[in-house]
Amino acid sequence: MAGYVAGVDLGGTKIYTVLANREGEIVAEVKVPTGAGWGYRQVLDRIAETVDAVCDRAGVSLDAVAAVGAGAPGPLDPRTGVVHQAPNLGWRDVPFRDDLAARLGRPVYLENDANLGALGEYTFGTGRGCSEMVFVTVSTGIGGGLILHGEIYGGAGGGAGEIGHIKVVPGGPRCGCGGRGCLEAVASGTAIARRAREFITAGAGSEILARADGEAEKVTAVTVAAAARAGDPDARAILDEAAGHLGTGLAVVVNLLNPELVVLGGGVMKSGKLFWEPLDRSLREQALEAAYRRVCLMPGALGGRVSALGAVALARRGIGIQSGG
Amino acid sequence: MAGYVAGVDLGGTKIYTVLANREGEIVAEVKVPTGAGWGYRQVLDRIAETVDAVCDRAGVSLDAVAAVGAGAPGPLDPRTGVVHQAPNLGWRDVPFRDDLAARLGRPVYLENDANLGALGEYTFGTGRGCSEMVFVTVSTGIGGGLILHGEIYGGAGGGAGEIGHIKVVPGGPRCGCGGRGCLEAVASGTAIARRAREFITAGAGSEILARADGEAEKVTAVTVAAAARAGDPDARAILDEAAGHLGTGLAVVVNLLNPELVVLGGGVMKSGKLFWEPLDRSLREQALEAAYRRVCLMPGALGGRVSALGAVALARRGIGIQSGG
Repeated sequence: MAGYVAGVDLGGTKIYTVLANREGEIVAEVKVPTGAGWGYRQVLDRIAETVDAVCDRAGVSLDAVAAVGAGAPGPLDPRTGVVHQAPNLGWRDVPFRDDLAARLGRPVYLENDANLGALGEYTFGTGRGCSEMVFVTVSTGIGGGLILHGEIYGGAGGGAGEIGHIKVVPGGPRCGCGGRGCLEAVASGTAIARRAREFITAGAGSEILARADGEAEKVTAVTVAAAARAGDPDARAILDEAAGHLGTGLAVVVNLLNPELVVLGGGVMKSGKLFWEPLDRSLREQALEAAYRRVCLMPGALGGRVSALGAVALARRGIGIQSGG
Repeated sequence: MAGYVAGVDLGGTKIYTVLANREGEIVAEVKVPTGAGWGYRQVLDRIAETVDAVCDRAGVSLDAVAAVGAGAPGPLDPRTGVVHQAPNLGWRDVPFRDDLAARLGRPVYLENDANLGALGEYTFGTGRGCSEMVFVTVSTGIGGGLILHGEIYGGAGGGAGEIGHIKVVPGGPRCGCGGRGCLEAVASGTAIARRAREFITAGAGSEILARADGEAEKVTAVTVAAAARAGDPDARAILDEAAGHLGTGLAVVVNLLNPELVVLGGGVMKSGKLFWEPLDRSLREQALEAAYRRVCLMPGALGGRVSALGAVALARRGIGIQSGG
């Protein structure tokens, strides 16, 4: 009996696929390496295998899957189903949605992963009931998605929500986009680790270095967060600075969109209060008073499953079910 | 016969009211001083007089006016019709929409003037047919309004579109909002005039000073634009700098919302090519490539009538007419 949907979160290193029943509850999940190096056709096959696998695990036939939601990285067009560029996968202008639909024999709905994160938190997580919501994920990079009037807002080209490339430090560190001082270049996990290595090069950050077996290349944002929790002032200064920059970027978004909720996800959020307090302070200092009063800043509830659950929500919308489980 | 609508643009110094026929064409207009000092009730009376006056001029009875659209400055809530704060008018938390509706005996629709500017350009001006559009007005201040999916987007609190308070120069000049380095503080007409006076104080800007009868206090953005057109390098440097900052702010908006069109209105746009070229260059350098390729930057078509025409469009929507004239 139909009503099941599958959600696929396709990343550069892994494919994470879930199966949800008609109530929106996850009944099976599977995670496999993407194997991007094998090429586009192989990745399509691999995704199809994960959909078969979750059906098997749940004891459900593929015919019972009414639709599949899929999230992919990089610029893509949800309307045409074409992934324009996915450097981690080596893809360029591939008709991913239609190819996957043909491969599975089921309707497929496609969105970029940050937008699905927004839809996931809105449908199943922290954002339930908040129809004007911004989702920001801070991990190796910084991504974002907008829920406006309870729908993903993609703008004219499907690319809205590019929060990571707001310039917050003019002339600051070089960003992957080619610009300088983008939010992603100063507040992502990658940026936090880079800043820690700068401390170490300058002869500071000994507590951080000790937690990385004395090897600067091994330092990550997780190392910095652990040192900060242990009271290390250098690590705390690094988190303070990154959180302050994130607050600068969020102030822009909050002033511009006047949302009721900003949901923050991604690994960096695990730094907890040591990141959250300076972030909230920075936002309060820099947002317009009325906009700050209206908005609520909260951590996401769905962790690493957020995009897959967003893909479930997208597929459910595709077959006419708006609400969560 | 009904089908006429009136549009009221209420400002701190003047009330500008137009009457449009059922085709959306302006058939009469009137402009009077606001007389804000006389108080709230007097301003309501004054607005009602302008509506009577445009009806008189068009030979139409007030009964033929199906609805009135009104734009007011400052934070207001279109849903409740309350103007929360209008410092130029000395108002605080007044039920303006309902009071005006009671005074006129006609339904009134209220919006802030920057949002009406966006709706005006979308309905009657440069934005026709562009459902994902950002409107920015650069005059004494910098305001903005968003059209998303062909509708004004106000966010959760009705305050979305606050483009003027994007921080573009960390630690820069103090802004009226209390922050530093806001777009409004470095790229508005007021900021351009202030920058010119700084040049003059430093012993430069003699060509600008000469055009202001040798009195630095008389320098305005119009003086600077005139000097720039005459080839003055100081004036050109000032416009370049302001336009560059505006490009920084617009890059944020373009990355975040991926619009198809940005419409620029307000007095500063009259500086023409000398402002436009550095603005476009700055935007191109700072926006993400895909977002820049997708967006078109254009001057507004409606000049000083933009908010009144937006009010006409709002009233027409109120009675079920979506399109322009």
